[in-house]
Amino acid sequence: MILAKIHVTLKASVLDPQGSAVTKSLHALGYDEVEDVRIGKFLEVKVNTTDKKVAEERITEMCEKLLVNTVIETYTFVLSEV
Amino acid sequence: MILAKIHVTLKASVLDPQGSAVTKSLHALGYDEVEDVRIGKFLEVKVNTTDKKVAEERITEMCEKLLVNTVIETYTFVLSEV
Repeated sequence: MILAKIHVTLKASVLDPQGSAVTKSLHALGYDEVEDVRIGKFLEVKVNTTDKKVAEERITEMCEKLLVNTVIETYTFVLSEV
Repeated sequence: MILAKIHVTLKASVLDPQGSAVTKSLHALGYDEVEDVRIGKFLEVKVNTTDKKVAEERITEMCEKLLVNTVIETYTFVLSEV
């Protein structure tokens, strides 16, 4: 079994309204040192295979096809045996 | 400036309907090797301070007060200078 830990983040040029809202809330709570908040997704995908090379190809496909909106988001992932 | 990379994930005992939906969608696309998907959040918080110890305390507070629902979620974070 292989576990893929995938980070999906908005591209730097894309506005992050959710992050802006959290920044404002943190300021309202007195955390004035907060400069910026960006919010992304963290996916853990467990796949029933032992071949890391195959897993890497398949996970890349899943990201491109379903998990990531590549117009506005970028992704990285790491694989580990579980 | 210090950047906190925060992972917020559902506790293992908590159902993840969003993850289940993604698992089903991946199966429908032919990715039958997918066993499980869990979806969490990935936050990047930039704070205007240079003291790592202070930053660690403040980020922990922010997580407990606003960023994380500690009833159903857990969190980890790492700090780096930027």
